[in-house]
This record gives sequence, structure tokens and C-alpha cells, in this order.
Amino acid sequence: MRNFKLTLCYDGSRYKGWQRQGNTENTIQGRLETLLSRLLEQPVEISGSGRTDAGVHARAQVCSFRAETDLDCETLLAMIRRYLPEDIGAMALCDAPERFHARLSCREKTYVYRIWNSDEPNVFARNYLYPLREPLDTPAMEQAAARLLGRHDFSSFCGMKMKKSAVRELREVKLERLGGELRISLTGDGFLYNMVRIIVGTLIEVGRGERRPEDMEAVLKARNRAAAGFTAPAKGLILWEVRY
Amino acid sequence: MRNFKLTLCYDGSRYKGWQRQGNTENTIQGRLETLLSRLLEQPVEISGSGRTDAGVHARAQVCSFRAETDLDCETLLAMIRRYLPEDIGAMALCDAPERFHARLSCREKTYVYRIWNSDEPNVFARNYLYPLREPLDTPAMEQAAARLLGRHDFSSFCGMKMKKSAVRELREVKLERLGGELRISLTGDGFLYNMVRIIVGTLIEVGRGERRPEDMEAVLKARNRAAAGFTAPAKGLILWEVRY
Repeated sequence: MRNFKLTLCYDGSRYKGWQRQGNTENTIQGRLETLLSRLLEQPVEISGSGRTDAGVHARAQVCSFRAETDLDCETLLAMIRRYLPEDIGAMALCDAPERFHARLSCREKTYVYRIWNSDEPNVFARNYLYPLREPLDTPAMEQAAARLLGRHDFSSFCGMKMKKSAVRELREVKLERLGGELRISLTGDGFLYNMVRIIVGTLIEVGRGERRPEDMEAVLKARNRAAAGFTAPAKGLILWEVRY
Repeated sequence: MRNFKLTLCYDGSRYKGWQRQGNTENTIQGRLETLLSRLLEQPVEISGSGRTDAGVHARAQVCSFRAETDLDCETLLAMIRRYLPEDIGAMALCDAPERFHARLSCREKTYVYRIWNSDEPNVFARNYLYPLREPLDTPAMEQAAARLLGRHDFSSFCGMKMKKSAVRELREVKLERLGGELRISLTGDGFLYNMVRIIVGTLIEVGRGERRPEDMEAVLKARNRAAAGFTAPAKGLILWEVRY
């Protein structure tokens, strides 16, 4: 049995997220499993590095799967590319070590949240940025972000009750202005359900002056979703990189 | 009566092109005229620098219109932006000299044709590039393009019978590799119906080795659409700049 590592990009706009839901075909995982099972003429189960929600995009999602085949990776990659819909792209495929698992082996992830923070229209990337015209106090947002860095219980920034530990390490939060775009990059050892979007929503509220950077400690301490800000929309979020 | 100059960008994917067709709402001109007539409470007719076909995009289309109003341009621009659909963007609005006319005053235009010439997927810009995996001989394409430069009767590169003159001056054709993208920029004093797309289709045939650069003179001389190559798809074409 060979073990494969597949790197994907996708425009999540028309999908119900990564995770397969029954037999519906409108999830990324569902699409891929159906395709690979047909191409390889055997049932194939895919593990993603993590789930992305409905409408969230990926620049480089990583997944792994096991299959019995003599095909070389280049040939199999070309076959996958031929049959994938145009909003899912196969970037790379290689044989992985026996013990490699896209989710369990994952060491670190970076997500990027893109805000279109300008009066000017942005027609060509409109599906990948959250439009927000009002001026944002980015130094205050940076100060708030700095207070979230480190190892914490992030229950306040989680969109559902956690049975397991909600402790994660947030290693870097970077804010960049790129013309009319405000880009927030978040790197950590793992992220809870909706965690990036709730952090971004909370930072936006700081940027609007509705919260102060120094309130972040209390938000963390509360361990209560209601203490944090709104969940920023899915369309601005992109899974940027997964490191092993 | 004031005379306005409006600069627009648009994603042409879901429109039947620039030009209004009866009362249908799915043309750029039709959308704009309806919106401006409502906002300004008077019938407004818009002149574009030229028509773009169904599916063709614009980075900076220019149009002009006359209207009676006391609104300053900044206010009117904000109103237009508020009501335009998200695939049409108003970049700039200003008062123009009395005699300015977007089409008649136009001195020069640049179109860009984007080819995605790579095996790698291009998920996020897929609506704006024509995907073409096969290797293309770009030096041969450049030589062919050079033979089209200058003032010629471009009837062979026109998608319909011309009643008026088909003489145009093609001033520059530039080919650039930008990663997996092959970008062809064409500048001239004006372009006939489908002219850019037929030139690009012909250059692609040269790039594939199906035609030789030195055949271009004969193609021009034929003054016959059948002598030139195929019409490259609309989705890769973008009206880049209009100069006055």
C-alpha cells in the first residue's frame, strides 16, 4: 500500500467546505474521494490537514491517502488534473513516508485573511476579499493581535463547544497593507473551529474602536464565545500553507 | 449641460458585452444607463470608448455622458459605486471638456490578452485567462506580431464585413512571460470587431508551428477573414487602457 501526499488549491465559493457530508458531491473531500476512487478503481479515503468551512479557500491545502497502484506520481497527477473541476487545482503529488498523515503529522499552519479596505472597487478579486470600507486603526489591531500570541485556551474564539482541549499556540499574527488590501496572516500549531474568523472579527472591532487592545486578556480569560467579536465572513479566508 | 468622463472596470463573464441591446439588462452599457438615468432623474445616454464583446473584461474602459446636475463628481461617484453590481466598478468620474466624447476623442487603446500556458492549475484567476497547456514558440509569435505592426487594412482580422475602412494602425505588440502566464499586449489607434482575438488566435497558431511568421504579409494581403487564424476566446481578453 502506498501513501500519497497531495497539495491542493481551491476556490471554496461554491462548496460546502472541505469535509465530506454523506453522499453529497459539493465538498472538496467528497469530490476528491469520488475522483480518486474512480481513477484508482478502489475505495480511497482522504485525510486533509484540517477542515475548511463552506466558502473558505485554500492556496495550499495538504491531504494524504493510501492506495495500491503502479502509476508514477507524475502520471497520476496529470490524471487528477484532467478530471478536477476548474475551481479545484492539484498542485503537487508525491509518495510520502509510511507514517505520514496530513492531519496528525501537521506541525504548523498559516491562514491569511484578506480585507478589501478601500472605496475603490475591486472587481477581479471580489470573491476572495471581505469588503470593508470604513477606516481601520491598524496599529490598535496589531497591539490586540500581539496580546493573543502564545499558548492559550482559545475557547472564546471557537465557534462550537470543544470536548477536547481548546489550548493552541498562536505563533505569529502579521498585518500588511497592500494597496487597498489589509492582509492578516495568522500562524499557529493548530486552529479551532472558526478560530481565525473570530480572531479577525475581533480585531476588526478593535480597528473600529469598539474594543481596546488591552481587553484581549479578558476575552481570552472568559473562555466564552460571547466575549469575542463577530465571525468574519468565509470568503476572505484562505488556508495559505501547511508545514510538516 | 455638463459632460462627464467615467472610467470603469468590469468582469465581463456574465454580460452580453458592452453595447445595450434593446431593453435587456445584461449589458454593461444598459446597466449603467439605467442606473444613471435613475440617479440623475433624466434619460442618460452613455458612449463607450468602444464596444467590448460578450465575456470580455475591462481594467479601464472609458465612457462619457451628458447630464444636468449640481452634484459634485465625488458625490455622484459614491452614489454610482453604491448601486453598481459587484462585477462592475466605477474607478473615476470627472467633468470633461464640452467637446470630449469617449469614442470620438479616443487616440489610442491597449488590450491585453492573457494565456495561462502551464500545466499547473490556476484556480483564482481562471475566469480571466485562456488556458492553453501546449508549449508555444514565443520568439516565432513575436516575429509574426512584428510583421503586423504599422498601418494596414486588417480585414483578414475582422469578424464581420466592414462597410467603412478597415485600415488601422497597430503600434505595439508585446509578449511577456509572467510565471505560467503568457501576456500579449496590443496597442493601436483602434481595433476592428474581434480584431485582437483573431490576431491572438493567429499568433497562437504560429506558436504551435501551424503557421510561419513570414506568412503574415500574405494573411494581411488576402483581406479575407478565412486567411487568418481562429478567434481566441473572450475570457482571456481585457481592455487595458484608453488614451486621449
